[in-house]
Amino acid sequence: MASTPKYYTQKLRILELIEHAHVGDPLPTERELAERFGTSRTTIRQALTELVMEGRIERTQGRGTFVAAPPIITVRQLTSFSEDLDGSRLDSDVLDIGEEPATAEVAEALGVEVGDAVTQVDRVRRRDGAPLARETAHLPGTYRGITAELTERGSLYRTLREAYGISLASVDDEIGTELANPSEAALLDIEIGQPLLVVHRTARASDGRPVEYTRSAFRGDRFRFRASTARA
Amino acid sequence: MASTPKYYTQKLRILELIEHAHVGDPLPTERELAERFGTSRTTIRQALTELVMEGRIERTQGRGTFVAAPPIITVRQLTSFSEDLDGSRLDSDVLDIGEEPATAEVAEALGVEVGDAVTQVDRVRRRDGAPLARETAHLPGTYRGITAELTERGSLYRTLREAYGISLASVDDEIGTELANPSEAALLDIEIGQPLLVVHRTARASDGRPVEYTRSAFRGDRFRFRASTARA
Repeated sequence: MASTPKYYTQKLRILELIEHAHVGDPLPTERELAERFGTSRTTIRQALTELVMEGRIERTQGRGTFVAAPPIITVRQLTSFSEDLDGSRLDSDVLDIGEEPATAEVAEALGVEVGDAVTQVDRVRRRDGAPLARETAHLPGTYRGITAELTERGSLYRTLREAYGISLASVDDEIGTELANPSEAALLDIEIGQPLLVVHRTARASDGRPVEYTRSAFRGDRFRFRASTARA
Repeated sequence: MASTPKYYTQKLRILELIEHAHVGDPLPTERELAERFGTSRTTIRQALTELVMEGRIERTQGRGTFVAAPPIITVRQLTSFSEDLDGSRLDSDVLDIGEEPATAEVAEALGVEVGDAVTQVDRVRRRDGAPLARETAHLPGTYRGITAELTERGSLYRTLREAYGISLASVDDEIGTELANPSEAALLDIEIGQPLLVVHRTARASDGRPVEYTRSAFRGDRFRFRASTARA
């Protein structure tokens, strides 16, 4: 059994401290915590960093540390992200929409040839203003006017359905963890190396033809994925 | 945009280096990499640590660093872990089987009262000998002889079905990331703070009654979860 590191003991004490606190309650400063628990500020800082990564607390530059809201739990079935979260204020920053030649990975997922034209929609998804996910969708072929159609509707699935007559019959989601790279960290307002929940989705039309392959990198501290299955 | 830290540049160079390597191929030593890339061993070490966390390479005490096998991708539907991975050599270390009073979390998930008797099965799941997950199942009520029944069959779902006449009609899985605590790190042979893929599963019988609530903490570097949904 590995021995328990010092910072971990302090992490448990801080968790105890905030157990009955409310979202938005401030935590004592690093210095106050170090004094109260009889330890160094370095140890307290390491404990706080893990609590930030796990989404238990939030650090705001110059303002201090606060108890964070619980993560968003989303049932992702045959709905898009924006349809999942109806009720919250949702918006996206479109980083790029354009045609790209299919890479080997995208070609395999979409059942096209490497180098075939694929429409790429690259966005940062926000909930109540806060960045939640970086999402890159790949759609086989050309979608004329997609920038305007998507801007009008917000939801990519609604756009595919209403503007292009494409509706989804099935989805496969593959979920794993990755560490944020520098550009993801900057876009999602987190530290480089912070854990992400990464979902690769392949969506198909009723004839089995793939119509979408999307990589969504969610902030690991803010998001959980729910999947339900019943016996047929 | 955050500036790219030094170690991250080296991480990309090491990834390039191993791009065409095979599973089990050795990497150059830290010292060799530092010399080749004209940087410090500390920077190389930080890059290697992230690659270990992401499951791209493996460190073996005293033997060096090697290209790791790709993660295991598992379709988790109405099957148990041991049924999912048929084909690999699977086994479990049983850490504990016993009755416990239901905590608030377990009581809510299972639809019982806090303090009611709940049978707990705590295991480390291994694939081809390597630890993959720490799994704690909670079953409402008393299961006489479960230790022997489970030992005989290995699979908990097979045991529930064959020895207790319980079969599952639906499951809800909630998937998120957490950082390994000291006991999880020791059991799964990873570093404290390394990302886990944590699945909370509630399984129900055909009458909607919850029959299982399980927390599975998978090594984030070794496991991906796949969920499929089709329009009814």
